[in-house]
Amino acid sequence: MCDTISGGVCAAEGFRAAGLHVGVKTHATWKKDVALIVSDVPCRAAALFTKNVVKAAPIRVTMGHLAGGQVRGIIANSGNANACAPQGVENAEKMCAAAAKEIGCAPEEVLVASTGVIGQTLNVKVIEEGMPELYGLLEHSDAASDAAAHAIMTTDTVKKEAAAEAVISGRTVHIGGIAKGSGMIHPNMGTMLCFLTTDCAISQELLREALTEAARTTFNRISVDGDTSTNDTCCILANGLAGNPEITEKNDAYIDFVLKLHEVCWHLARAMAKDGEGAKHLITCTVRGAKSEEQAEHISKSVISSTLTKAAIFGCDANWGRVLCAMGYSGEEFNPEEVNVTFASDAGEILVCENGKGLAFDEELARKILSEDEVDIDITMKEGDEMCTCWGCDITYDYIKINGDYRT
Amino acid sequence: MCDTISGGVCAAEGFRAAGLHVGVKTHATWKKDVALIVSDVPCRAAALFTKNVVKAAPIRVTMGHLAGGQVRGIIANSGNANACAPQGVENAEKMCAAAAKEIGCAPEEVLVASTGVIGQTLNVKVIEEGMPELYGLLEHSDAASDAAAHAIMTTDTVKKEAAAEAVISGRTVHIGGIAKGSGMIHPNMGTMLCFLTTDCAISQELLREALTEAARTTFNRISVDGDTSTNDTCCILANGLAGNPEITEKNDAYIDFVLKLHEVCWHLARAMAKDGEGAKHLITCTVRGAKSEEQAEHISKSVISSTLTKAAIFGCDANWGRVLCAMGYSGEEFNPEEVNVTFASDAGEILVCENGKGLAFDEELARKILSEDEVDIDITMKEGDEMCTCWGCDITYDYIKINGDYRT
Repeated sequence: MCDTISGGVCAAEGFRAAGLHVGVKTHATWKKDVALIVSDVPCRAAALFTKNVVKAAPIRVTMGHLAGGQVRGIIANSGNANACAPQGVENAEKMCAAAAKEIGCAPEEVLVASTGVIGQTLNVKVIEEGMPELYGLLEHSDAASDAAAHAIMTTDTVKKEAAAEAVISGRTVHIGGIAKGSGMIHPNMGTMLCFLTTDCAISQELLREALTEAARTTFNRISVDGDTSTNDTCCILANGLAGNPEITEKNDAYIDFVLKLHEVCWHLARAMAKDGEGAKHLITCTVRGAKSEEQAEHISKSVISSTLTKAAIFGCDANWGRVLCAMGYSGEEFNPEEVNVTFASDAGEILVCENGKGLAFDEELARKILSEDEVDIDITMKEGDEMCTCWGCDITYDYIKINGDYRT
Repeated sequence: MCDTISGGVCAAEGFRAAGLHVGVKTHATWKKDVALIVSDVPCRAAALFTKNVVKAAPIRVTMGHLAGGQVRGIIANSGNANACAPQGVENAEKMCAAAAKEIGCAPEEVLVASTGVIGQTLNVKVIEEGMPELYGLLEHSDAASDAAAHAIMTTDTVKKEAAAEAVISGRTVHIGGIAKGSGMIHPNMGTMLCFLTTDCAISQELLREALTEAARTTFNRISVDGDTSTNDTCCILANGLAGNPEITEKNDAYIDFVLKLHEVCWHLARAMAKDGEGAKHLITCTVRGAKSEEQAEHISKSVISSTLTKAAIFGCDANWGRVLCAMGYSGEEFNPEEVNVTFASDAGEILVCENGKGLAFDEELARKILSEDEVDIDITMKEGDEMCTCWGCDITYDYIKINGDYRT
């Protein structure tokens, strides 16, 4: 879909990052657990948060800090969600204060995020003690973004990084980011954790609007297990160092920026769905011929969230009846007798249901198609001209294994 | 909760049942696949169906037949859902006609239901050919109810039967039924298949109201996997042979009838949740202190439907953070800082979260409590005085195994 560049969260001018193991994760000392992202100059910032009523302490702290309008950095940890935990807000504030002391800014200029186990007191002391070393590791490099991307991973099996560049008003603008996903992924806004940076000069209001639009069609269209986390945070820092004239209206420059931001978010969202806990398949479900984008989205999301459909894809079983069933309980009205379903992948494509009825199809070919890592479920209705794509993954023995004993 | 009697769907006077293998299930010739339930005299009938937009053919046929107001029997098969299948309505009508011919009634006096694979043509010929033998097996006995209960099973590991009696206006009234559940269970009305019979004399209108009320607080409060089936059917036949004065208003007799019907449905619903595909634990989640029954129901259902909570219970892991998280995305507003969570079972009980914060608790005891077959999650809020209980089950390796290759 797009040509990306390297650099991740450090792709944009003036951003440095670092990742380090300080001891929040007690079992695995080789796993980084704290990430720091710092801009050389003050940034505009925007963020989206979980719509879960139970919001983790760092989200509440970050919401307050965003109100200040000026941000220098982000401090984040994995291994503990600091949600429903004693001294939650106090400990999140301490993380900001420790980072601010090194950066040389006010604690209110630092955003904070956490991911990991819910309900256990965060060992903030090890984060405070490790902060000077973490700060000392800051670099504007591919390796630094890589370290930060690793430091926010929990059960993720691969790091998630993406970056892209665009020429806006004659200047090269960079947008990049890191993210983590894996379990408890059914974002109702962004996703578990996603930190984006850009050197684009853009107004606070349009930065927020661009982020909302990009997340709506990427992070809000993935699901791993239907569980919307208490800690979902997606934020973007813009430091203006690209030197482009500040974007203050919805002109071509704004559109170029949104498109590029969308590209980066698309990469990260897909990577999150593909690396869902225990997942063996990325499932891309596209619904066409809907009467509205919203209808297409509800139906597509219902399909990728269906436990039975996910189990069928795990078994490479072309059980399209489950796809129709999930469409049917999406809450949307449509004529089931005008639905076509096709399974597709790099191994080919096969129409399995036409006008709501099963076709005799080549089971061998179907199994071959569904054995690929990335599988498409293409649905066509005859309700209208709108479409939507959502991303999910299969459910596997490993998902059960990972989540049957997560805390210990 | 209640003292039940034997007899299942044959507990009520004048009802006979039978189950037989005729060949719809091609792989397992020792498994019964057709059930017939017949009343000696015409019945009033009421039924609830799936709210899935994709409705199986037998549901559409049954809806039409119910309009006639008089029913003699029910014909049902397992092994094929006759949903999204060629000649669906035609084949469902053929099942009714074949049964009606034996019973000696009009085809419109027979209800029909199917469960099994979606999208494959029903082999109605074997059902038609087997009908005389099936009819010949009809009996008013425990064994006959048992045979019918087995004949509607798909991946169920145990049959589901229940019956109860009540003295209404001086006459002994019986209510009994059989059901099947297992997978694709997240009823938005009743459940996969449930056939209830009673000898109570009751008006058509109140029979329907009683069934709706009983299902609302039983079948509509269970979930196995969040997938609402295309075939959910719950129906009741009332033949009036108990000889009680017909119930035509909401007097004490009506209340006695509803309570008894609720008792039978409660048993069947719990049995369905407990025998969810691959399940090792029945999970009973009770929410107290809600501002409305609806709020309590939404929160409780969100908890029992949470894949992550289900995986934690499978692992006997007292990960209450997932319970709070699921409460938080239920769509209901509440104060998370006034929530208490207790895990309980026959092995004891343990408070793990108080006022929204984790407590230090005895992990050994918690594991012992969660190792029991039946586990309670008791949630207390401070929003009001209402409560609700919902039932679910854990998600296991076997669920994935069963559903990864269901069709073959």
